[in-house]
Amino acid sequence: MTAHLRLNKHSAEPLYRQLARALRERIAEGVLCVGDKLPPSRQLAAQLGVSRMCVVNAYTELLNEGILMASPGRGTFVAESFGALSDPSALPSVAANPSAGTLSPESVIAFSGGAPAEEFLPVAAIRRSIEAVLERDGATAVAYEETEGYPPLRAAVAQHLASLGIRATPENVLITGGCQQALDLAIQALLNEGDTLLTTSPTYLGILDIARIRRLRVVGVPTDEQGLRTELLESAIIACRPRLIYIAPTHHNPTGSVMPLHRRRVLLRIAAVADIPVLEDGVYHELSYGAEPPPPLKALDEYGVVIHANGFSKIVLPGVRIGYLVVEGALRQRVLRVKQAADICTPSLNQRAMHHFLVSGALSGHLDRVRRACQQRRDVALKAAQRYLPSGARWSVPSGGVYLWIELPHSGVTAAQLYPVALRHGVSFAIGAEFFTDESEPSAAYFIRLNFAQQSASRIEEGMRRLGAAWSEACAVLR
Amino acid sequence: MTAHLRLNKHSAEPLYRQLARALRERIAEGVLCVGDKLPPSRQLAAQLGVSRMCVVNAYTELLNEGILMASPGRGTFVAESFGALSDPSALPSVAANPSAGTLSPESVIAFSGGAPAEEFLPVAAIRRSIEAVLERDGATAVAYEETEGYPPLRAAVAQHLASLGIRATPENVLITGGCQQALDLAIQALLNEGDTLLTTSPTYLGILDIARIRRLRVVGVPTDEQGLRTELLESAIIACRPRLIYIAPTHHNPTGSVMPLHRRRVLLRIAAVADIPVLEDGVYHELSYGAEPPPPLKALDEYGVVIHANGFSKIVLPGVRIGYLVVEGALRQRVLRVKQAADICTPSLNQRAMHHFLVSGALSGHLDRVRRACQQRRDVALKAAQRYLPSGARWSVPSGGVYLWIELPHSGVTAAQLYPVALRHGVSFAIGAEFFTDESEPSAAYFIRLNFAQQSASRIEEGMRRLGAAWSEACAVLR
Repeated sequence: MTAHLRLNKHSAEPLYRQLARALRERIAEGVLCVGDKLPPSRQLAAQLGVSRMCVVNAYTELLNEGILMASPGRGTFVAESFGALSDPSALPSVAANPSAGTLSPESVIAFSGGAPAEEFLPVAAIRRSIEAVLERDGATAVAYEETEGYPPLRAAVAQHLASLGIRATPENVLITGGCQQALDLAIQALLNEGDTLLTTSPTYLGILDIARIRRLRVVGVPTDEQGLRTELLESAIIACRPRLIYIAPTHHNPTGSVMPLHRRRVLLRIAAVADIPVLEDGVYHELSYGAEPPPPLKALDEYGVVIHANGFSKIVLPGVRIGYLVVEGALRQRVLRVKQAADICTPSLNQRAMHHFLVSGALSGHLDRVRRACQQRRDVALKAAQRYLPSGARWSVPSGGVYLWIELPHSGVTAAQLYPVALRHGVSFAIGAEFFTDESEPSAAYFIRLNFAQQSASRIEEGMRRLGAAWSEACAVLR
Repeated sequence: MTAHLRLNKHSAEPLYRQLARALRERIAEGVLCVGDKLPPSRQLAAQLGVSRMCVVNAYTELLNEGILMASPGRGTFVAESFGALSDPSALPSVAANPSAGTLSPESVIAFSGGAPAEEFLPVAAIRRSIEAVLERDGATAVAYEETEGYPPLRAAVAQHLASLGIRATPENVLITGGCQQALDLAIQALLNEGDTLLTTSPTYLGILDIARIRRLRVVGVPTDEQGLRTELLESAIIACRPRLIYIAPTHHNPTGSVMPLHRRRVLLRIAAVADIPVLEDGVYHELSYGAEPPPPLKALDEYGVVIHANGFSKIVLPGVRIGYLVVEGALRQRVLRVKQAADICTPSLNQRAMHHFLVSGALSGHLDRVRRACQQRRDVALKAAQRYLPSGARWSVPSGGVYLWIELPHSGVTAAQLYPVALRHGVSFAIGAEFFTDESEPSAAYFIRLNFAQQSASRIEEGMRRLGAAWSEACAVLR
């Protein structure tokens, strides 16, 4: 009954809307009948080759329209009152929903992703670098590269790291496919199935993905405005005996928090005493537009416990997929073996182009522009949040990164309840509970994460207005 | 004593020679004394950031010079007779070795690698594709890509596969970082630590790397000129209960064998009965210059047991790192989750450039040129082998791929004994024993693998002459 569903990924209509429409039509045509059980979202997502979120959104829309009904623990079914309809136009649809106003599907303002703003990507400069490299190196630029990475890029990264206070030799810099691969390789080199990874809660979604795939146990330590609550760290270590601590100390994703210097030192001392390596994620460190953040953990590491993972996806551009790991000694060799088995090497051309870009000196001017733009957008987002979000909503002012982490008032709807209504209003966000190591934590349900960097000032303003309106409507309807 | 060794990766002098020289100097200077134990090759390789093969080669050279001595099970030591020398120039060196003739270190003819010939890489065409894509797509070409891969590339690959008899929908094509990542993702999605992987013996080195990293048990089934000996397959399956069969049926690396149609069918039927998925490696399938090989296993698969891994490294160019996996159903979704955790996505620009190259129609003409060139080089290699290699050496004529798989006469030296002598003569090869799942198999010691595609006709001829001379010398000295 869902066997021949086909979605068009190049349509302007969002995938979840195409899916909702297709399901509505099947119900109207009687292909799906009253009481029929729909496939679990994960399974349908796999079948259609879309994200699970896409299926969840489609189901949520139909649930809200009363076309589907959910039975906790049993699944999602075609609801009685709608199964017999024979005319699809009689079904309530997004277009017919008066609360959606004059919005076309394309106009959803997406605060949900993790990408930097496309209009700031240095496309022209990277293009010049690619052309220069192909001109200079010819076939060598498209042949196999050393597993460690293109040596001049490793030297350029080492030099760049010196500006952050990190002393690294080119030998200790290993080039990876983005920071995500840097994290994954380090974890594969250090942990076995069943081992425990300690991190903040909430934490980066990508590390939770890795932990699931690698069958690791994840334990989260709570955070506050200053990041990891280090006073809880020792007892957590004693209780769970982790093999690794993963942490993003600066402009943490999703909270935006920055660990102050004293907490960094406490963390390092505790890790050194317990002899547990610390995997530092530095991707947002340089996307800072407040006061200079404290140095990276790696720069403060007197004990040799820190492995530094970083990359150029957030500060230059994501699609070239260049990240790196700073790692020493025997672990370095273990990581190299994992990298060799994983994909032999990171594409030579991409490494050479990034090297050319770095040594051209273009990074510093580019970073200045991105920082200024992000800061402006953050300020617009903060002002609009103040104006449109419900009283009782709380957030901290991020001094870097691209996220606003908002706690909705507990007197109103949860983020998951707000989500489908917000979509109908033409705005999306990331549901905060997904970032927690334990989603059942009571306050987790009320958090949302907004990426303000991807939208223009006017769309941020309008998106926040829609979000406020959606919240009011959701509270009125659902309570 | 090896703490401050530094090698220069950008020197024209090969790394193993630099290392051998540095060790000689240390011994001469008394930093390393008589009876001192050298670090295990793996450890020194890790410390220096070089391959283990580099250290093994350096040690072998010094062992042959009598400067080091090996004690089985105990390690490698500075030999008595040389420890006291104070003048490094008194030591025998590569340059002083008369058998090396007038060769400079750069002139080593390397038959050892796995890369295609650089002069055939379609650099100009790929460059045009990259430029066209950047012009057409701008920032989108350097933003994040879908984890599944760039949809038009997946469609183009599906279409390309149709020409090989493989029916695949774009949904079932997942783009990966080269074929190596395709293999690794499939294995991660299917196997847990401790599971058994069944393959041919010998087999692809990269699959042995993956098995080591993933802590899998590897069981090898012997091969003959027609590849996997399928008559041994059922009993091997019963004995070891594998979770996956990995196989390269066409132009097998290292042997060059092609499984005939009936063996393919037998393999598929046995795998289907035992309900064991078959991971097919198709990277050399199209590099065929004899009779048309039988269809890929995936094209013959009536049972749905085959996962097809492939890529463009061998037929177009390696440095762009584009491979793919053809996979259906629930496994497809598992692979996607592994890919997401591994590196989020394969670089967008590389995917778009490969797509542009494919739809430009350039592949077919390019493949014709590469096939012709490889065939010519194979013919030169066969003729030269006939002329220069010792009588009693045996090989099959490969009808595709880039390798000549040679069994040296068992009356002479082993491949490992030949290796250092061959290096001194200015020619290198891959030692065959490393490709066997069980290196202690008696005949394994006499195999060598030569990549003939990377060298010009005159260098193939000269390399084979050196190999023959090295074999004669090695036999005279070592026996």
